[in-house]
Amino acid sequence: MSGEGATRPLAIICGGGAFPLEVARAAAATGASPFLVGLVGASDPGVEAFPHVWLHLGQVGKLFAELAARGIAEVALVGALTRPEFADLRFDWGALKRAPELAKAFRGGDNRLLSGIAAVFEGEGFKVVGAHEIAPQLVASLGALGARVAPASAEMDIQTGAATIAALSPFDAGQGVVVAEGRILAIEAAEGTDAMLARVAEMRASRRLKMTGPAGVFVKAPKRGQDLRLDMPAIGPRTIAAAIEAQLLGIAVVAGSVLIAERESTLRAADAAGLFITGFVP
Amino acid sequence: MSGEGATRPLAIICGGGAFPLEVARAAAATGASPFLVGLVGASDPGVEAFPHVWLHLGQVGKLFAELAARGIAEVALVGALTRPEFADLRFDWGALKRAPELAKAFRGGDNRLLSGIAAVFEGEGFKVVGAHEIAPQLVASLGALGARVAPASAEMDIQTGAATIAALSPFDAGQGVVVAEGRILAIEAAEGTDAMLARVAEMRASRRLKMTGPAGVFVKAPKRGQDLRLDMPAIGPRTIAAAIEAQLLGIAVVAGSVLIAERESTLRAADAAGLFITGFVP
Repeated sequence: MSGEGATRPLAIICGGGAFPLEVARAAAATGASPFLVGLVGASDPGVEAFPHVWLHLGQVGKLFAELAARGIAEVALVGALTRPEFADLRFDWGALKRAPELAKAFRGGDNRLLSGIAAVFEGEGFKVVGAHEIAPQLVASLGALGARVAPASAEMDIQTGAATIAALSPFDAGQGVVVAEGRILAIEAAEGTDAMLARVAEMRASRRLKMTGPAGVFVKAPKRGQDLRLDMPAIGPRTIAAAIEAQLLGIAVVAGSVLIAERESTLRAADAAGLFITGFVP
Repeated sequence: MSGEGATRPLAIICGGGAFPLEVARAAAATGASPFLVGLVGASDPGVEAFPHVWLHLGQVGKLFAELAARGIAEVALVGALTRPEFADLRFDWGALKRAPELAKAFRGGDNRLLSGIAAVFEGEGFKVVGAHEIAPQLVASLGALGARVAPASAEMDIQTGAATIAALSPFDAGQGVVVAEGRILAIEAAEGTDAMLARVAEMRASRRLKMTGPAGVFVKAPKRGQDLRLDMPAIGPRTIAAAIEAQLLGIAVVAGSVLIAERESTLRAADAAGLFITGFVP
């Protein structure tokens, strides 16, 4: 490890799944020395491959002490965190001191929980950074990401999808839509991306959608004003599998604003299926 | 039959299903004397309970001759029409004379097909009217339609749903959304209302949506600029059954712009389930 990032002290608070580890590896590859905070019952045991500490949810005082002891000033919250049950939290003195702030964060929806927790860190003088800032190589770039280039004929559908997501932004709904030749086939709300793509596959199988051959583009974009540090849209191998089932032409993501998880296997799966993945500017 | 409508000559071109007959009965109840045009292979045999003629799709010359013979100047297109296969059409001389206009209508999507056909009627001097104009008693009025009144707490969700549909209007998507306490749970696109409500039921059953008890409102509204004469949103008994499965609090429809099919049994089913149905102004 070398370069100016080599000594930059950075903590990654790890949610569930393999993605926090992927971000940690990518950060290390760019010269950073990430310190991982594993959450008991949530994080992958793989955090132990890095300098790390295990904490229970609620051990807020201990967390800040661990970070201070290492001179860490930057913190990233990475990976899925299912909303914990209040009864499972182990509040230490550091948590009790900050109880009013934490209680406020818990009262809203998931976005508010995340931004409330980020505010607690910021109140302690930490800088909260996003996965895309510490691991920029995981972020979609502009243009073809895999072997296949998006055909010019898909451009209109991509822009229609982006405009639809933008129109839905004030309602905090829809990071994803499927568009085929100007027609909106599906719009994502609480069901999530995989279920939305499965719906398109089902509509094709049942001939509710009478299309033959690959058709349609899955467009993924953050909502306007979405805090990318806390909740960045992502695609991964499961997205590709679902897009293949739906017989799409390809996937379009906003360049610089969408993460590609397990990038190599994701792009390889898309290439094998003849699916394009493209980064675009809305 | 009496009143000024008694002699108003009116033709109803009947698509599939029972709804054209319901409109015909409702029109007759207001004093009109509807003449029904049954389409071979599409319309319900019940058209024979009214003065009627059976025609094959494509017998355009014969259609206009039948209407002229009866001094009919107003025409309504009512009920579902699956896009016919070109090979199934039996063009007569009257159709061939209008071939360029008909070909133009056939080239676009379903909305364009409808408005193209309406334009052909208008070009012949007919007035095209909507089901809501000849059977206004089938249209949702303002306020509670059934026994249960929408609680004041639902008002915000109803307006959020209406605003979401309005925002989607430029993209020709979404006549329906489900909103629960400010959160958009589902947005309708090509799958249709029943599938969207089934999705909410599934999300609740699988605990993807962690709600207990009745929650959420299904909001149905026409798209901005939608031609209500040709394609008016409608709810009916199946909508109620699906809303019950989804454990909704109620259904909100735009007053004056949404039809209630099989009104009596629809409202009775909603009442029995404790579901509100309300007409609102967006």
